Amino acid sequence: MAPENLYDQITAIAKRRGYYWPSFEIYGGLSGFVTYGDLGTKLKRNIEESWREHFTRRQGFLEIEAPLINPEIVFKASGHLENFKEYSAECTKCGRSFRADHLIEDKTDLENVEAMGGEAIRNLLKEHKIKCPRCGGQLQEPVLFLTMFKTEIGATGGETGYARPETAQGMFTNYKRGYLHAREKLPFAIAQKGKVLRNEISPRRGMTRLREFTILELELFFDPQNPKCPWLNEVKNEKIKLYTEKMLETGTAEPLDITIEEAVKQGHILTEWQGYFMGVSQQFIDHLGIPKDRQRFRAHLTEERAHYSDQTYDHEVKLTDWGWLEVSGCAYRTDFDLKSHQEGSGKDMTALREDGTRYTPHVVEPSYGLDRLFYVTLENSYKRNGKRNIFHLPRDLAPIQISVFPLVNRDYLPEKAKEIHKQLLDAGLYAFYDQGGSVGRRYARSDEAGTPIAVTIDYETIEENTVTLRDRDSWTQVRTKVKDLPELLQKYFKYKAEFPELGTPLEN
Amino acid sequence: MAPENLYDQITAIAKRRGYYWPSFEIYGGLSGFVTYGDLGTKLKRNIEESWREHFTRRQGFLEIEAPLINPEIVFKASGHLENFKEYSAECTKCGRSFRADHLIEDKTDLENVEAMGGEAIRNLLKEHKIKCPRCGGQLQEPVLFLTMFKTEIGATGGETGYARPETAQGMFTNYKRGYLHAREKLPFAIAQKGKVLRNEISPRRGMTRLREFTILELELFFDPQNPKCPWLNEVKNEKIKLYTEKMLETGTAEPLDITIEEAVKQGHILTEWQGYFMGVSQQFIDHLGIPKDRQRFRAHLTEERAHYSDQTYDHEVKLTDWGWLEVSGCAYRTDFDLKSHQEGSGKDMTALREDGTRYTPHVVEPSYGLDRLFYVTLENSYKRNGKRNIFHLPRDLAPIQISVFPLVNRDYLPEKAKEIHKQLLDAGLYAFYDQGGSVGRRYARSDEAGTPIAVTIDYETIEENTVTLRDRDSWTQVRTKVKDLPELLQKYFKYKAEFPELGTPLEN
Repeated sequence: MAPENLYDQITAIAKRRGYYWPSFEIYGGLSGFVTYGDLGTKLKRNIEESWREHFTRRQGFLEIEAPLINPEIVFKASGHLENFKEYSAECTKCGRSFRADHLIEDKTDLENVEAMGGEAIRNLLKEHKIKCPRCGGQLQEPVLFLTMFKTEIGATGGETGYARPETAQGMFTNYKRGYLHAREKLPFAIAQKGKVLRNEISPRRGMTRLREFTILELELFFDPQNPKCPWLNEVKNEKIKLYTEKMLETGTAEPLDITIEEAVKQGHILTEWQGYFMGVSQQFIDHLGIPKDRQRFRAHLTEERAHYSDQTYDHEVKLTDWGWLEVSGCAYRTDFDLKSHQEGSGKDMTALREDGTRYTPHVVEPSYGLDRLFYVTLENSYKRNGKRNIFHLPRDLAPIQISVFPLVNRDYLPEKAKEIHKQLLDAGLYAFYDQGGSVGRRYARSDEAGTPIAVTIDYETIEENTVTLRDRDSWTQVRTKVKDLPELLQKYFKYKAEFPELGTPLEN
Repeated sequence: MAPENLYDQITAIAKRRGYYWPSFEIYGGLSGFVTYGDLGTKLKRNIEESWREHFTRRQGFLEIEAPLINPEIVFKASGHLENFKEYSAECTKCGRSFRADHLIEDKTDLENVEAMGGEAIRNLLKEHKIKCPRCGGQLQEPVLFLTMFKTEIGATGGETGYARPETAQGMFTNYKRGYLHAREKLPFAIAQKGKVLRNEISPRRGMTRLREFTILELELFFDPQNPKCPWLNEVKNEKIKLYTEKMLETGTAEPLDITIEEAVKQGHILTEWQGYFMGVSQQFIDHLGIPKDRQRFRAHLTEERAHYSDQTYDHEVKLTDWGWLEVSGCAYRTDFDLKSHQEGSGKDMTALREDGTRYTPHVVEPSYGLDRLFYVTLENSYKRNGKRNIFHLPRDLAPIQISVFPLVNRDYLPEKAKEIHKQLLDAGLYAFYDQGGSVGRRYARSDEAGTPIAVTIDYETIEENTVTLRDRDSWTQVRTKVKDLPELLQKYFKYKAEFPELGTPLEN
């Protein structure tokens, strides 16, 4: 197995097994679009639920669902119409367009060329004599290209609209509703999960740069005069690997190994709320199965930060092929957005203190790309054991919980297996019945689907009403009474039992 | 309470409590777009999960997630580019556009004017001297308007794309992947939940006609030579109210009161698969709390049916203000779609029989508008009791499961209540802690949020470690030990206990 093409390997399995594949295959494909199959859709939904578990349910934060299409005025006020642009260079020969900064990064050792600005990009293209990567043709001078999808709303006399490139404006434009539903008490937060669209000029690297993807976002509103986070204690001892802005500027190679508490105290993290969410973020990414040595937090440099941010830390996960990938950004957006919309709409976007003074709340935003979380979860869970592909997915994320199969397809074993399968369905479990091929093939399929438990029905099942349970990770087996099965498995999938506790161990 | 404006009443509560409200309020609004608040987002997600429970998990059907934006070629092949149009009439004075058929329906007793065609629509507008409903101006001749949102994908030299107006093309263009994942065995099904966009000319009636909404759709692929549904037995005795095409043509007033089995036998329903899904559909809508006497199935007339359909039955729910509303369509799409995409793409879209012959599968499609399901669920659950607004939502759909409050805000009761609240959160329950206003206000808020159980912490809690549980529907109360609470409530929310079983009844 050559590690340099792990992405391709996983993508090949993903296509075959129905995790994901490139969209519009029968029409020759269209880059930047992906389709999730049955296993992928379920895994993605389970990751989404885990995000909710970490970021909203326990805290009692609000969740909303706002439209994907927004009238132009929203993005004028937010600054996107002015700022959501990239330098695009068109080939004079084949007519294709490319992101100028990516062309430069591909040809040089430079990183983060985007942040260098238009003048530098133009000069670097010339300096390195960069040509069209497809046909070798001459490139035109790069021009700024608005990377939002544009459309018209309504028939004649309608108005211009854009697909949102992030979900955050939904929380800001609805801030006042959230404020009322939180009974005019800060801090409160509004979360949103939703599709976003970015008209990337030349998307590449498959799952990590899509034109259509899903965001999990949360806006925490607080009073800058009262910036305490009441839950900081719950994560204060989380040890994180941190690259501060200063460390990046001075080229420090090794990250700080520091607790959240210390990082806030020492001023590396500007607000307690960022500290809290970065701690929760590490717990969340841990829960997806990503080891701590493949996680780090990296500050944005001043020139790299979005137009609204005073400090942003990316939570990055290390991929085998491509190195560090941003899966999340935790941004201190200050009062930029509420002030922008107050100006744009003329509506009041403030909050009231008990002493009667009014203020514009400040905002901290932890934001996740769900498709990237999906991919890093899948890649990190993958192991090859001999000829076997195994996705060691955390048990509450596994698309299918239980495989059920008869040892052989005769002597009433399939009928008995179907009966047990039905009992598991009745218990609310995601169980998959399989009688295709040999029992070995069935185990192999089960492992490739990341299914934690396989239940085999054999001759003893008929005689003694017991079944064999096999653990995906250790391949060990236990024997259990059929009548105990639903309850035991329900416990197991709530992390209230470990595999050996599900029955009597068998010699393998 | 005047029944003629129940929609407005519910919408007022919905805004105040955070079920839903019109989008872009601070910018003056934009018709056809709605934002779901915290309660709405949770209720909507619970309805979606109930759909999955009824239509995919138990059957082992596949679910996918395909893109919202599609290249033009997809909708050319599907027929949408040609057919997804409405007659639009523009006012010569104010420039606004309106759906011509709706203008006629508003001014006459005519129904389903859309199906009459362009010539009839033009004549009826003249005949009834219909003017602009906004300014009274003269209307231009109506013209066909493509009601898909259009955009450009990529920078210069990019291609035209459209937002999907339904999710079905995702299943058809990915049919071959589904076929492989179903191991080349029919019947199999692919389901999809997703956002869709329709550029409605003049949307009205709020939640029931949106420009951006969510669809729950399923495509069942079967061999027309083997059209049996193995699960028909499970729903054969469901009694439905049925208006067949013939009954509509002859103007029969009363629907057939008939079982699914008989309706299929007598040929009123063309395929067993439609029969099966219509039976499941009634069980699903029952589960949302809609009484049977507010449900019916109505056939589409030939001229009303979409370009792909041989027979469609709408599942309709009766609203108080607006009469019967389509929440679902169950369409027999034949082999139209797969043949269209085979022609459009040049790729094989057939299946193989055991005897070696190839065929194009036929398709039956049950399709739901989730936003409409949401609204009918909310409206049907609403009752007013004195001054109290109560949403009697089914317990597995309720956005918040449990309210927790101290009887008074002193003597350690809030601390004790927070402790119990945390125990319920730890048990994975959606619990909401409330110490605002009087205990009466807290009960009122709990009822308005549709929360099934309220837990009150009082002086006996401190002394005897018991709490009062109150049922939202009957307002009866029981007393329970704190230590039993999490387990009892988990049982209750799995429909494994009824309210009185949660403790010792109290006199009210």
